[in-house]
Order: sequence, then structure tokens, then C-alpha cells
Amino acid sequence: MTTATAQDISTLRTSLRVNGERLWASLMELAQIGATPKGGVCRLTLTDLDKQGRDLVIGWAKEAGMTVVIDKIGNGFMRRAGRNNALPPIMTGSHIDTQPTGGKFDGNYGVLAGIEVVRTLNDHGIETEAPIEVAFWTNEEGSRFVPVMMGSGVFAKAFTLEHAYAAKDTEGKTVQGELARIGYIGPQEPGDHPIGAYFETHIEQGPVLEDNDVTIGVVQGVLGIRWFDCTVTGMEAHAGPTPMALRKDALQVATHLMQEVVANALRHKPHGRGTVGMVQVHPNSRNVIPGRVKFSMDLRNSTDALVDQMVTEVKAYADKLSRETGLSIHIEQVSSYNAIAFHDNCKDAVARAAKALGYSNMPVVSGAGHDAVYMAKLAPSGMIFIPCKDGISHNEIEDAKPEHITAGCNVLLHAMLERAVVV
Amino acid sequence: MTTATAQDISTLRTSLRVNGERLWASLMELAQIGATPKGGVCRLTLTDLDKQGRDLVIGWAKEAGMTVVIDKIGNGFMRRAGRNNALPPIMTGSHIDTQPTGGKFDGNYGVLAGIEVVRTLNDHGIETEAPIEVAFWTNEEGSRFVPVMMGSGVFAKAFTLEHAYAAKDTEGKTVQGELARIGYIGPQEPGDHPIGAYFETHIEQGPVLEDNDVTIGVVQGVLGIRWFDCTVTGMEAHAGPTPMALRKDALQVATHLMQEVVANALRHKPHGRGTVGMVQVHPNSRNVIPGRVKFSMDLRNSTDALVDQMVTEVKAYADKLSRETGLSIHIEQVSSYNAIAFHDNCKDAVARAAKALGYSNMPVVSGAGHDAVYMAKLAPSGMIFIPCKDGISHNEIEDAKPEHITAGCNVLLHAMLERAVVV
Repeated sequence: MTTATAQDISTLRTSLRVNGERLWASLMELAQIGATPKGGVCRLTLTDLDKQGRDLVIGWAKEAGMTVVIDKIGNGFMRRAGRNNALPPIMTGSHIDTQPTGGKFDGNYGVLAGIEVVRTLNDHGIETEAPIEVAFWTNEEGSRFVPVMMGSGVFAKAFTLEHAYAAKDTEGKTVQGELARIGYIGPQEPGDHPIGAYFETHIEQGPVLEDNDVTIGVVQGVLGIRWFDCTVTGMEAHAGPTPMALRKDALQVATHLMQEVVANALRHKPHGRGTVGMVQVHPNSRNVIPGRVKFSMDLRNSTDALVDQMVTEVKAYADKLSRETGLSIHIEQVSSYNAIAFHDNCKDAVARAAKALGYSNMPVVSGAGHDAVYMAKLAPSGMIFIPCKDGISHNEIEDAKPEHITAGCNVLLHAMLERAVVV
Repeated sequence: MTTATAQDISTLRTSLRVNGERLWASLMELAQIGATPKGGVCRLTLTDLDKQGRDLVIGWAKEAGMTVVIDKIGNGFMRRAGRNNALPPIMTGSHIDTQPTGGKFDGNYGVLAGIEVVRTLNDHGIETEAPIEVAFWTNEEGSRFVPVMMGSGVFAKAFTLEHAYAAKDTEGKTVQGELARIGYIGPQEPGDHPIGAYFETHIEQGPVLEDNDVTIGVVQGVLGIRWFDCTVTGMEAHAGPTPMALRKDALQVATHLMQEVVANALRHKPHGRGTVGMVQVHPNSRNVIPGRVKFSMDLRNSTDALVDQMVTEVKAYADKLSRETGLSIHIEQVSSYNAIAFHDNCKDAVARAAKALGYSNMPVVSGAGHDAVYMAKLAPSGMIFIPCKDGISHNEIEDAKPEHITAGCNVLLHAMLERAVVV
């Protein structure tokens, strides 16, 4: 086995490439687990399907000679030894859980790109100085259990293991119970695991790269995110005999605040985002005026100051609306993720790799949270984006081109190799 | 037993009164079945609780010497024989199913007022010329199974028994299956049952009587109703990375149409009503832009011409909204109930009884559909309203005063007696 050294890097850049077809085949095989009729994937975290996905990926890691450690929140660390195993590993990873109507690439690409990096190093008999690790993080999506990015969040001590364990899905099942049920409570304390540097490869989930016809996005940072639950309380009453003037229609009041969430984001261009994704009407009967409406608000922007300004404005609007209508409006923060800037060394490693490999590239910002956000608190971190079709993800028609999948993985390989050699 | 004759009517008006305390006690006892912590009732049609309610009411009827017939859609007819049983019965009735968060009086009052009329006639040994019948109609509320007013609708041949049987709740259970399960598929063909005249006593479910401090509403007719399901189809996508300008947010477009439903009703005073009571967002995840929103629209007015005008305007608004946003909007009619005017003879009988008994009274319009709407197609029909607290019904805090409950039942007694003697 060859041990790569700093002076080998330029030689390797000329010659070493991942096996794109093998990576694509693995992506398609994993996508069979929870495949939907429309071509997407529904593999919610900690379900039987999630267990099948985890088992498949771990099987591949073991075939590639990696050792596997699971921690108490179910994060998996698949390790390829280096020459100096006292060094902290150069890590990549992402998640394999999906949205209820998710696609084949979100998260899954980041994990399988890591496996492909290892397979490629094996193919060429290349030994790195530092060990290489590929992580899959539990419950990144947050659609079954809140908070999102749960596994990486516990790992980074953003919240406690106990807090995560107690989270319940809509049926009242807990994270702890479901983790135990699928056999993924491991022995390691979350976070008890040094990291030398962290890279995450991901589809962009937005349209910027596609619009610019660029292959590689060198991710500069991640938008700050604030999540709220908003409850408007009126008075339910019979839809027929209650004159319009005497109504306290919670839904009508809610629609104005829902519109402000979007209007506010439009006032905060270019990076402002405002979304109402979830709505619950009570009692939800067609001839009863809604007495209570609960809905989610998702606000994002490129700096914490900007997103906080959006929050202030939306809350002021809600106060005014409440005064004008006499209906109570309660806004509760569910989660908050600060805007983050990735580490210069990692951004540079990604940009250098893309340039050396001849891929068009540009700096971009991530609109979505990723596990890399938490890793950035622990170690120098960076992300690599590739285009996805029409900028669409969290959707069954999410799609990416094989050549972009391959390109992103080649950039990952060379960025990791640079870090794993020049530690 | 005394047989009442036309010439006895004025004497009876002076002396004969129902037992208000007994009626109140029966209402409170029935309200225990499905009682909610907030003082309301949740007794959805064709549930175990509905069966318990039906059994209790039938038990009371039998104690009062009545015979009971159930038809194939589960409607119950509790009969007190007259002197001439070849005459079609003078009927009263309503329903005992409730909304998910319903009150103690809606429907239940109309059925138990009928039982109290019979108990009162028994107490005083009064025989009528025509038989008296008290009906309870299956699934008036429509909150578990559509269409509403199902039992009276099948009885009046507004739709077929097979259509009603096939209706499914959100769990996929059918009306036929649930009726059989609770043992309420009777032998009689629905509608195979002549009616001499029909009266229905009901809380107003609106604020007009209370505002006017009037005890008895002489109901002139019922607002025309049109029900629609509206579906807005956009494109679901990730809430973070999808720039505002590229979104096809189905919920945002839907909120504008939801507002138009209310604004339209406000433009059609005094009887126009517009309500969005039910909303379903897909996929309903907080970080996914909604790809599809389905919601109900309920439009009402005092004449069919007015309500049709409202429908035309709302559809035109939806077309314009669809053109402007590029999102598809599909509007499908679910149910339609024509505005109806009650029979002069019945309205006069109610007004005469209220006047003779010394109760303040005024003509009112019903904003809600009632089983009496279908009965009006088959026989001279009328309704008696009493005030309810704050005009609120379809709510757990629905309330009515015992003296109004008694007054409405006294008016029912004398209106029925007039018709049952002077047949």
C-alpha cells in the first residue's frame, strides 16, 4: 500500500478519480428502500425502512474494510484506518433518513460519496496519514421527530441526549423507544469522538448552480434559521347562522399572518426565506368556523442580524393583527440555528480541488441546515454542492445528473486527501 | 282518555303545558353520553356512543307507550297512536348525533322536545285525532360522513340509500358497516312512511333572538347552501434553498382564496355567509413548501339566486388567481341545498301557538340546514327556534336557558296539537 504524502498530491490530482458508476449504482440501490411510486423515497427516521437503509450502508462499509462504531443517539462512524491512527480522522458524512415525500439524493449522496472515497482509496492502494471516517447522522430531516439534525446536534452538545430521547412522533412513540426497537442504540457517548476536519457533499436543493450552469458550489456558509409554532385562537361556531360580523374566525386571521411570513421574506432579498409548511385547523369540520389554527413559520437569512430583524417584524405584525381582530396570537420558538460561515481552510481545499479537477465552480450559500452546521462548531468544516434538477429537493422528483454526482465526489476525494495527508 | 277536538284547542291553550324540568333532566341525561371535559358532547354518528344515545331515547319512548320503527338508514320513528291511525302522523324530530366538539342542545333538543310532548299528552290523558310521531334522523351533522342530513335526505329521496351506505369516514369505515355494527339497520324502506305535517324545534344557532330579547323564532325558511372542495396545486420544495421568486407555494395562493370566501360573504349582507372550515396541507412538513392544499368552502344566502351569485364571484376570483399565479385551482361542488320557504300553515300554527302562550316572537331565517329542509319536500313543515347563549352552537360551550327550552316545547306541543286535531 502506498502512503500518500504532500508531494504526491499534485500527481494524485492528475490521475485519481472515483468510480462514478459504482457510486450511482449504490445510490440507486439504497433508494429502493422506501421507494415511492413517483420515483422518490419515504424512509422516515427510526422506522423499519431506516433500519434497512442503515444495515445496507454498514454492510458496504464492512466490505470496504471499515470498522463501524454506533453511538447512543444512533449516529454511525465508519472508519478507514490511517498510517497514524492517533490523529483525529478526516470525516465526511450526511444522513440517510428522508422526508415523507423525499428524493433519492438528499443526505444519501453525502454518505455514499464518503463510501465511494474509501472504495477508491482501496482500489488504488492509497494509505492516508490520518484515518478517514464516514458518518451517518440520525434524524437530520426532523419530519418525524423535532429537533432536526438531531444526531449531529447531540454529538455537538447543542442539546442533550435525554432531550433527544424524549422527542415523540405524532403517535406518541419516542426516539429512545424507536432507536432501541431498530437496534441502533450503540455504546459510544455522543461527541466522544475527535474530528480533524469535516466535509459534506450535498445536492444544492436550490436553483443557483443550475441557473449558472456551474458544477461545483463552494459553500461559504449556511443561512440562519428560526422556527416557530404560531397559534391563533378565536371561537368555533356554526358556519351557517353566525353572522359574519360576530365571528372570531381563527383561520381568517391566520391567513393574514401566513401571507406576512412570505411578504416579509420578499422584503429581505436576496437571501430572505419565509415558509408556512404545516397547518392544523381545529376542529377542521366544513360547517364549523375554525376556533383555533396552529401553523409553522420558517424564517431564514444569511446573517443572524437579518433573520432576527425578520422575526421582529413578523412578531410586530402579529401583535398588530391581534389588536385589530381581538383574537389571541401566540408565537413560540421551536428551534433556532445561527447563520454559520465555514472554515477558510476547508473552503479553500474544496475550491482548490474543483479547480485542479477542471470543474466550473462558484461560491454559494446554503439555504438549508445540514449536519455540517453542527460539525463546524467542533472542527474546521466545509461543504460541496452539486446542481439538482430545477433546484428541487424534499420532493419525490428530486433529481441530479450522474456526471455532477461524480464530480462532487471527486472534489470530496481530493479535498479530504489534502487534509488527510497534510495534517 | 279525552279525545281533543277542534273546539277544545282554546281551552287546552289556556291550561296545557309541558313539564320543563322533566325535559331539561332528559337533555342533561342524554348529554352525559359522550360528555366532554369542557361541558360539551362528542357523540359522532354511528359510533358506540351514538348507539348508546339511540338506545336511551328509544327506552324513553317505550316507557311513554310509543312503538318504534327503524328504517334501513337507521332513522327512528317513535309513534303515539291517534284515534284515527289511518291518518298520516303529525311528526316532529331532529337528530342526536353531534359535532366533534358539539354541545348539549343542537338536535338533541328537537328529539327530546317531541318525547316531552308525548309525555305531556299522556299525563293529561289527551288523545289526538292523528297519530303523533317523533323521529331521530341519522347523521345530520355530516362531520364523520358526507353528505350531511343523511337520514332525512335518504328518506326524502334526495339521494339513494346505496349512496349513503357507501360513504366513508377518514378511517375508511362505511356508513353501512357502522350502521350494521351498532345494530341500527331496520326493516323499513326509507321514505315508506307518510307524514301529515312536520315541526322541528331547535336552538337558533345564531344571535338574532338573543340580540332582540325574543323567546320564539318563527322560522320562515332556510338559507341556500353550497359546499365545495377546493384544491390548489403548486410544487413542493425545500423551504430553505428555494428562492422566493421560484416558489409555487400552494398555501400562499390558497390563503387569498380563503380570504375571498369571507370577503365575498361580507359583500352580500345581511344573509351572506362564507366559511373555510377544513384545511389539509400536503405534505404538511415545516420545512417543505406546500405542494397541495385542499380546503372546504361553505357559501350561504337567503335565496338561491344570491348564493349562486356568490359562487359565480368566488369562482371568477379563483380563475383570476390561478391565471396570475400559474398554480392550478380546482373547485368541486360537494353538496348543494336550495334555499327553502316553510309552509304557511305551519308557520301560522307556530306563530299562533307562541302568541296564545304569551311568548315574544319574531320571524327569523335559519342559517343552517336542518332535517326539516328535506321534510319540507314531503309535507307541510315548519320550525321553532329558541335563543342560545351568544348565538353559539357547534361548540362545547353551546348553552340555552331552561325557560326557553320549555317555551319552545310548549309552542311545539300546541302547534302539533292544532295539526293533529284539525287534520
